[in-house]
Amino acid sequence: MTVNREIHLAARPQGWPTADTFRLVTTEVPTPGPGQLLVRNQFMSVDPYMRGRMNDAKSYIPPFALDAPLDGAAVGEVVAGEAAGFTPGDTVVHGLGWREYALVDARRAEKVDPSLAPASAYLGVLGMPGLTAYAGLLDVAALRPGERVFVSAAAGAVGSLVGQIAKLRGAAHVVGSAGSAAKVERLRALGFDAAFDYHDGPVHESLKAAAPDGIDVYFDNVGGDHLEAAISALRLHGRVAVCGMIAQYNDTEPPAGPRNLALVIGKRLTLRGFLVNDHSHLREQFVQEAAGWLRDDKLSYDETIVDGIEQAPEAFLGLLRGDNLGKMLVRL
Amino acid sequence: MTVNREIHLAARPQGWPTADTFRLVTTEVPTPGPGQLLVRNQFMSVDPYMRGRMNDAKSYIPPFALDAPLDGAAVGEVVAGEAAGFTPGDTVVHGLGWREYALVDARRAEKVDPSLAPASAYLGVLGMPGLTAYAGLLDVAALRPGERVFVSAAAGAVGSLVGQIAKLRGAAHVVGSAGSAAKVERLRALGFDAAFDYHDGPVHESLKAAAPDGIDVYFDNVGGDHLEAAISALRLHGRVAVCGMIAQYNDTEPPAGPRNLALVIGKRLTLRGFLVNDHSHLREQFVQEAAGWLRDDKLSYDETIVDGIEQAPEAFLGLLRGDNLGKMLVRL
Repeated sequence: MTVNREIHLAARPQGWPTADTFRLVTTEVPTPGPGQLLVRNQFMSVDPYMRGRMNDAKSYIPPFALDAPLDGAAVGEVVAGEAAGFTPGDTVVHGLGWREYALVDARRAEKVDPSLAPASAYLGVLGMPGLTAYAGLLDVAALRPGERVFVSAAAGAVGSLVGQIAKLRGAAHVVGSAGSAAKVERLRALGFDAAFDYHDGPVHESLKAAAPDGIDVYFDNVGGDHLEAAISALRLHGRVAVCGMIAQYNDTEPPAGPRNLALVIGKRLTLRGFLVNDHSHLREQFVQEAAGWLRDDKLSYDETIVDGIEQAPEAFLGLLRGDNLGKMLVRL
Repeated sequence: MTVNREIHLAARPQGWPTADTFRLVTTEVPTPGPGQLLVRNQFMSVDPYMRGRMNDAKSYIPPFALDAPLDGAAVGEVVAGEAAGFTPGDTVVHGLGWREYALVDARRAEKVDPSLAPASAYLGVLGMPGLTAYAGLLDVAALRPGERVFVSAAAGAVGSLVGQIAKLRGAAHVVGSAGSAAKVERLRALGFDAAFDYHDGPVHESLKAAAPDGIDVYFDNVGGDHLEAAISALRLHGRVAVCGMIAQYNDTEPPAGPRNLALVIGKRLTLRGFLVNDHSHLREQFVQEAAGWLRDDKLSYDETIVDGIEQAPEAFLGLLRGDNLGKMLVRL
């Protein structure tokens, strides 16, 4: 018979996760009951927010349980199960990644169209990262045409879309920061007006050179010195959409906050944290608009694909290190 | 002939202002030209924001000039001058404080009604501090009935009004922090549900005890550990109206920011800096509502009055030290 392999949380990491954090476990492929679908996962997502769920801390989603499979977004093919609206062969997105076979409550599965875009795209450009970029930029930061935008982790799944959507929506100047020369080159190819490698010098200096007239919107994926530099660069009535602070997810001591936060007063700045789940009312509008941009070759997206469930922990660590260009995925 | 005395900026302070920062200068009383009013100032305001103007730094208002009179809000009686709409004996609010006699462009003078409230009230409860409290709480933080509010520097001109207006507008729980036991007692008398002296222990512990169910709105006058504690105490979708950060105005090194800023993401918090000048559309509504509350004895205000222009520097320093209860004023 066919076996299923899945990744369990073996230990809660202190600081950076290690090999001891994860355990590869072999189980039997489950049998779907009424209203359940058995899904052969094709791709699973690794996302920065998963690091927070490895801590035993109260947050907006419960922590991962010890000695149980991790979870997260995945896309795959329905191979068995009976539920209204689904037939074997359907491609579905659901929340039970980190395993080869998932037993999914049909009410938690979303059928997607693999003829419109490859299945993997529903974990990236057309999925949660895409909506995160769209909602953060347009809803949270309320970007207006003619404004100047800065985004960090700009070569990542969310950041690369933030920059492109900003240009498509009329931003006058879009700056991205990333962690290597190759990524910076890629950002320029994607249409960013300026880009810099944050290893090349103090972020505030690089940002000043890349955005000499300042910025109106900062889409924050990293926190730390990027946020501090952005606060200094923001113009009157500027906005920060705080999406993530990956620079500190593995810190064991709480990091110092921006030393220039008092600037929010005189410049009347707004910093707003957000979660994509609060913006699902934009999903339909977003998918329509993004699918149109993809069809018209106005929007590009990158994927970094790692093969095999046994490589998922390493893919996750690589994501935290910034090894990926665009969306980091594991092909199962 | 009558002389005028005024306070000049003698030197830009490094850190705390000292006696050397100020210079008392005697001049002749000026003669008004067309469209000008000569005003005998009765009260002048000292405000925390003035510390920033003593630095030679670009900000939302120009720095004070060296070897020239300081300025700021004042109220006084028109004693000479011809300008449409004004006659000698009128009480006017204007921006040329730190002097006994002011030569005021009539277009920059606002006539107020001393029968409605004492002249000094137009520098406090019915003036800029009052509108700051009102706009910050209702416009910037968008307080809704039933919410929980925390305000720092709560015994000051702005903070004491924030707490009372919050209660008048239906807040379920209002907490204030202040710098002495006497101030804490005063806050309780003003109707705050809880109050603490921030010297009595870590702010986050005192706040947790005073607001065990957390807070929805934080009105920030001080920054520093108060802001950090508030971020921890804020509930989902909480808001911070950032009005001032007096704790750091005399710092010579940039202070560390809040170490828990990443909480803005999961809790979807909004931090918004504001200046009262952006909210002048609320002035008329505010004065009407506040005058009604005063008439009905629903709103109280304190004043700490220092006598004599020569005491104005000391009054300003006292304000920065927190010596005042309510509005700090100099009677001229």
